[in-house]
Amino acid sequence: MNKVDEKHSIDIIIKGDYLLPMDERNTIIEQGAVAIDGDKIVAVGEADSLINSYKAKEVIRGEGKILIPGLINGHTHSPMSLFRGFADDLPLMTWLNEHIFPAEAALVDKDFIRSGSLLGFAEMLMSGTTTFVDMYFYADITADLAHKAGIRSMLGVPCIDFPAPGTSGFDQSFDFAKAFIRKWKNKDDLITPVFAPHSPYTVSQENLQAILQEALDNDIVIHTHIAETAHEVAESLKATGKTPVEYLNSFGFFDASVIAAHMVHLTEADIVTAKEKNIGAIHNPTSNLKLASGFSPVHQLLDRGVSVGLGSDGAASNNNVDMWQEVHLTALIHKGKEANPEAVSAKQALSMATCLGAKAIHQGDKLGQLKSGYKADMIQVDYTGLLCQPMYNPFSHLAYVFTAEQVALTMIGGKVVMKDRQLLPAVFNDLADEIQEQAAKVKHWMNNRGK
Amino acid sequence: MNKVDEKHSIDIIIKGDYLLPMDERNTIIEQGAVAIDGDKIVAVGEADSLINSYKAKEVIRGEGKILIPGLINGHTHSPMSLFRGFADDLPLMTWLNEHIFPAEAALVDKDFIRSGSLLGFAEMLMSGTTTFVDMYFYADITADLAHKAGIRSMLGVPCIDFPAPGTSGFDQSFDFAKAFIRKWKNKDDLITPVFAPHSPYTVSQENLQAILQEALDNDIVIHTHIAETAHEVAESLKATGKTPVEYLNSFGFFDASVIAAHMVHLTEADIVTAKEKNIGAIHNPTSNLKLASGFSPVHQLLDRGVSVGLGSDGAASNNNVDMWQEVHLTALIHKGKEANPEAVSAKQALSMATCLGAKAIHQGDKLGQLKSGYKADMIQVDYTGLLCQPMYNPFSHLAYVFTAEQVALTMIGGKVVMKDRQLLPAVFNDLADEIQEQAAKVKHWMNNRGK
Repeated sequence: MNKVDEKHSIDIIIKGDYLLPMDERNTIIEQGAVAIDGDKIVAVGEADSLINSYKAKEVIRGEGKILIPGLINGHTHSPMSLFRGFADDLPLMTWLNEHIFPAEAALVDKDFIRSGSLLGFAEMLMSGTTTFVDMYFYADITADLAHKAGIRSMLGVPCIDFPAPGTSGFDQSFDFAKAFIRKWKNKDDLITPVFAPHSPYTVSQENLQAILQEALDNDIVIHTHIAETAHEVAESLKATGKTPVEYLNSFGFFDASVIAAHMVHLTEADIVTAKEKNIGAIHNPTSNLKLASGFSPVHQLLDRGVSVGLGSDGAASNNNVDMWQEVHLTALIHKGKEANPEAVSAKQALSMATCLGAKAIHQGDKLGQLKSGYKADMIQVDYTGLLCQPMYNPFSHLAYVFTAEQVALTMIGGKVVMKDRQLLPAVFNDLADEIQEQAAKVKHWMNNRGK
Repeated sequence: MNKVDEKHSIDIIIKGDYLLPMDERNTIIEQGAVAIDGDKIVAVGEADSLINSYKAKEVIRGEGKILIPGLINGHTHSPMSLFRGFADDLPLMTWLNEHIFPAEAALVDKDFIRSGSLLGFAEMLMSGTTTFVDMYFYADITADLAHKAGIRSMLGVPCIDFPAPGTSGFDQSFDFAKAFIRKWKNKDDLITPVFAPHSPYTVSQENLQAILQEALDNDIVIHTHIAETAHEVAESLKATGKTPVEYLNSFGFFDASVIAAHMVHLTEADIVTAKEKNIGAIHNPTSNLKLASGFSPVHQLLDRGVSVGLGSDGAASNNNVDMWQEVHLTALIHKGKEANPEAVSAKQALSMATCLGAKAIHQGDKLGQLKSGYKADMIQVDYTGLLCQPMYNPFSHLAYVFTAEQVALTMIGGKVVMKDRQLLPAVFNDLADEIQEQAAKVKHWMNNRGK
């Protein structure tokens, strides 16, 4: 029996000059590699050692590259990419009531969802996002396309107590949501169906409890918006005498696995509850700044051990879905807000988009790290460009220097979906034309509304 | 006399699908163009009209491009690009005293300045910065190289009351500064020499007054740091009973044209003084956040009519010199800070990097706008990439969507210095190797210090 025969046959070895598994010790492996079989990681270590141990069908070179887990976008509304830059610099209620809601009512149909979803996915794959958590109308279309695009997602049909694109009100939206769960549960490894009640202020307690019961009975994650604005908290206190977190907790909402987008305006008690009830808090810094919602107490949430992830929110309030900007902002703004240059380090900000973000979306046992047994979701980042030089510390550059432009390869479940800045899945082939068509419809509506 | 003979002969017509002159009316000219002769703009208008009126030696096409004035970096330390990511997430005094100052003392020599300056220029030209205001040691080397790189600058020899790289103390630094002014004044149209006293807390009143007198006698701009941290203001109040702005104003410092970097911690009276004395306030959002200095009251400064520009500060506290990130942050963070989504609009943020920024560096009569008689400093921005689509409003995309990657052409004084993401000046040819050499020295020092 010779040496070669002793090697274990696998699909892929992918290398990097620097491999950051995003483990608790902030390990950096120089000349590292990941061994992949099927959609899973089978080993992580030094490249020489892995090359000696495994016989791979394909070896992906790593010269000039940093290898890290794929980024996780914990909260977005991907089809809204067609509303990129549609309305800016407006008070939240003007923005929503005079621009976004009327535009959605007039323009959001199945074609809009198709093009918008794909545009969102294109941007995510180009910028190294491998998993996203979404909430938008016609989620079934988005799910079909996400499968074709090869991107991992947690998707849900929004449930809300009034008519919205595609539904007549709560009962119909909840029926659609349950049907969506039945259809997608355990169907496609890339797609995890979730319940997506819009918020505690747009869905009644009775309806939230109905969703909660379904979620608990079927072991389904719930994705919702919580404590985004001071106004929301004030209204909650007025109506219930409780903060949104206290109110939801009062009827056991957090017995489910909850992904709570925003979590901006929190009391100390809310933060304690977030830890105790294992709420995944998704920080959306661009959106919170742009809509003037405020600064989430991220430093305090992290100190308490809450799982905090990052999200881009929809492109209408961002105006993109690029997680590098969210990491960058997260590493900057809390230092300024807290007057503490040690608040939310580069490593912490990056962890929120990877390992800690995975815990926040309740997938910490299979996503967010380069680790044996985990899904083979990872990206290569090119650090060799003149403007990325010199590099003394990869963690620093990942938070403060790199942009989406440096992402050279995106792999999801062992499949390369973007390489050398080119999207590989065929579903993107006609996207540029589709977007022009939809954008023309939006422009026509903008130019003719109110006439 | 035929039609062709009637045309005025000029050097260049450059076009853009959208031309934003950055005038007070926020004009957008569709299918616009700029006519250029020598280093100046001779006309701005619709492309068809300019093509009819002028016979240009060269026509630069504008399909898929937005044409705007070049960006102005109002405060940086360009050679510090070699300290990119050198030390992060540390308290200011630890960062300065244990990292930056010792590294500067050990490493900053003429070779370091050469490579560092060029790296800074490369990044600026690639990201569309056409003018920068600098303060760093061995400014004479930086000036020579800026001329060769074809980038416009305001440069000064730092004056400081203690020994620093290249100088033994204030007297020598002031002698060097005066010699620098004599050498460069009216020598090179791209280079404007300035005085650069480091700050009111590192240069005595007597020495500041000596600089002020020279500045007034020779009509020279002064570039300095003012009110960057709460600590600086507290120390000023303790020592003089006055804020830094009050203290400087008390001996007529603002009778000179002053470029005041940072201006973070200001009283209402300081803001009134800034307006009355025409102080140019340079906002450095990334640096102020990263070093936890705080949030400059930009919204209030703008409301009072103060000329506010933007700066990247040095790459050691940023960690780059990319003005797109500063524009983006400026359009976001003040909304969050003020809880007002209308605070500092996309247009205002962009103006701070162009027309208003030009006023802040006391060059508002020749830079920062596309306007007849102004310097031909401008950039083309490519809006056609999939991830920039759709575009409903160019101003919105310029603040919230585009990154340095979209800059397709950089022109300074009528000369194209970057085109299709390639730097044209020969001075950059060996830069990659030079940087590796300098970075190796820095890494060696980092690994061996304290041993």
